[in-house]
Amino acid sequence: MSLVVMKFGGTSVADTDKIKNVAAKAAAKKLQGHDVVVVASAMAGVTDKLIGYLKAITPNYDLREYDQMVSTGETANVPLVVQALKQAGLSSESFTGMQAGIETDNKYSKARITKINAERIKKALSSGKICVVAGFQGYCPETGDITTLGRGGSDTTAVAIAAALKADVCEIYTDVDGVYTADPRIVRNAKKMDVISHEEMLELSSLGAKVLVSRCIELGMNYNVNIMVLSSLEDKPGTLVTSQTEAIMEEMVVSGVTSDKNQAKIALRNLPDRPGIAAELFTKLAEANVNVDMIIQNFGSNGKADITFTVSNTEFSLGKDVCKKLYDGISGVKMEFDENIAKVSIVGVGMKSHSGVAATMFKNLSDNNINIMMISTSEIKVSCIINEKFNELAVRVLHDAFLGNEDDVGK
Amino acid sequence: MSLVVMKFGGTSVADTDKIKNVAAKAAAKKLQGHDVVVVASAMAGVTDKLIGYLKAITPNYDLREYDQMVSTGETANVPLVVQALKQAGLSSESFTGMQAGIETDNKYSKARITKINAERIKKALSSGKICVVAGFQGYCPETGDITTLGRGGSDTTAVAIAAALKADVCEIYTDVDGVYTADPRIVRNAKKMDVISHEEMLELSSLGAKVLVSRCIELGMNYNVNIMVLSSLEDKPGTLVTSQTEAIMEEMVVSGVTSDKNQAKIALRNLPDRPGIAAELFTKLAEANVNVDMIIQNFGSNGKADITFTVSNTEFSLGKDVCKKLYDGISGVKMEFDENIAKVSIVGVGMKSHSGVAATMFKNLSDNNINIMMISTSEIKVSCIINEKFNELAVRVLHDAFLGNEDDVGK
Repeated sequence: MSLVVMKFGGTSVADTDKIKNVAAKAAAKKLQGHDVVVVASAMAGVTDKLIGYLKAITPNYDLREYDQMVSTGETANVPLVVQALKQAGLSSESFTGMQAGIETDNKYSKARITKINAERIKKALSSGKICVVAGFQGYCPETGDITTLGRGGSDTTAVAIAAALKADVCEIYTDVDGVYTADPRIVRNAKKMDVISHEEMLELSSLGAKVLVSRCIELGMNYNVNIMVLSSLEDKPGTLVTSQTEAIMEEMVVSGVTSDKNQAKIALRNLPDRPGIAAELFTKLAEANVNVDMIIQNFGSNGKADITFTVSNTEFSLGKDVCKKLYDGISGVKMEFDENIAKVSIVGVGMKSHSGVAATMFKNLSDNNINIMMISTSEIKVSCIINEKFNELAVRVLHDAFLGNEDDVGK
Repeated sequence: MSLVVMKFGGTSVADTDKIKNVAAKAAAKKLQGHDVVVVASAMAGVTDKLIGYLKAITPNYDLREYDQMVSTGETANVPLVVQALKQAGLSSESFTGMQAGIETDNKYSKARITKINAERIKKALSSGKICVVAGFQGYCPETGDITTLGRGGSDTTAVAIAAALKADVCEIYTDVDGVYTADPRIVRNAKKMDVISHEEMLELSSLGAKVLVSRCIELGMNYNVNIMVLSSLEDKPGTLVTSQTEAIMEEMVVSGVTSDKNQAKIALRNLPDRPGIAAELFTKLAEANVNVDMIIQNFGSNGKADITFTVSNTEFSLGKDVCKKLYDGISGVKMEFDENIAKVSIVGVGMKSHSGVAATMFKNLSDNNINIMMISTSEIKVSCIINEKFNELAVRVLHDAFLGNEDDVGK
């Protein structure tokens, strides 16, 4: 007998009819002979409504109170799933994060799971019950306070429970039917992958693919959890994110192409080349809560330094302010700000053992007159910053070059 | 320094503006130098909305899941009160029933409080915080499950916390401004009482006055909690429900007149007068969940018994069914069913030591041609069942007789 964790997001449980659908899926799984844990989010819109009330009182709300409040969206929803399961003749019980034993630190609104005491869930499972757990929430055992896990929290709940229970698979039901070799809205012949490694998925995710948050993939990687991404609307196979497929995956050089237009670039030229200049800049940016992505530093022959870095669009104006405060009026320093950029990336574990992948990427871009502004590489990805207007073209060109003629993409 | 518990119901916290009002009241109390605990209900309408979702899935919902769900209405609301208090510059913290240490039995949807571990609240109070506690909920320590306290649950939470903390007063803010000598919609010169005993309030409450549920008054009586009923809209004194006023109260013979039209009467005549006939009838009624209020039994000279009893309107048709099943076709038995009755009552601790009160009541009713169908008495009240159409007249007549010329009503 196997154990399956099934996670459903807010749009999948947005009303009582959709909740009945979710229950039907879980019931079917149980009737196939599996033990089943369901992790459910709040009804779509409920969390925003609650936050709206808070903001109507003050925009500077306390994060402990925020957690106490928004966690109720999930808590109120899981009994509905239980009720729909009971209506279908199955035994079931709902669990808050606390009842499910999800212990966290006390970082309200973005708490990290420190431990899962799964005894209560295990007991309910062994008595034949389908356990329905409120996603996105846990509690801090030191304070007794309710905490929430931040963005993608319910996915994280699901993977963490799957890890604690050593589940055979953690199924994440979403509004897409799997992970594609590129965004199908850009590349018409993008193909759904049957399988992808945690490592690659992590790169794809941090590079802009929105299917799973990085943190949940990391957790899956660390605890070796098989994560299946699949559609909540259609009944067809999705994409398995796993670490048990290295043998097969080695055949693939590049498994996906991804892009991110939520990027902006700041270039600082002719900075005085003294020790600590970069440290000073990036410390000030960090203090202003500006997250820096790519960084390039050159030392000119004139004894001056050039530093170029990228930030997300939302933090662009904050980043500009920091730079202006530091360098406005300093003789010779030039600042360039550019919001119209995109990051295009290729990802694949095969790169580790194949040379020439980056060169092929650069050649294909240049053959199409796409200028590369910045380059960043890791063991399993190459990213290029380009002019935003070439974004879709670049994705198509690279998909054709690396994945266009493959019949067995992702196999 | 004194300690005040302030309870606000759903209409007092129905939106963020009203919540700011509640916070202003609590802040004013704190700034007067009192320690303050606020008990808040869910926003008006929220609980019904949640129950609506449950009913959309099944009318036969599980009470554990019901409690898990509906308790979120209160849990989501208390952080808003805290936030409004913080906005006003005060230190504050929200508490779920569990965090407030409210332990209950495991009777889901109508749990009874078994114990309050008030340590966490005491600690927060001593650090100067206004504690804001979610009403209506507790938890069962054996199961770790969330429980709700049933009708009037938030009032019960407030009085129970006041008892545990030995608060100087538990203020219940409502949409009326106190307890009256009669319903002001019926008796124009009904007067607000300044003070009333727990005992009298308990009788008034179980006889139809809707201000406080019996259970919360009982708790107040057992733990000697001073309960102040007052308006959440106007800033004026309310009615104090207390046990510390016997000396003053003895002066008053009757403190209030009340009536209840939610009554129906079932009369069974010529029942065979054999042992166990009453036991059989009332056992069957109890099995059908019909609560019987008043009972009169006569033995006729013909060797037959007459039994007359009253039930609430809502349980009338259930009660009829039980009787018909038992006695239909039994020779000579006659059944009379009457929905058009009302119960009019006078209440006062002074009755204990004053004779002739009941006689005065009966005489005043008969002088106005109001026929008395049934009579029931306790140490501090007399109730008469009359034709429903005389209800308002009877209340006015009795108020005039006992309370009309008093200048110092309730003093």
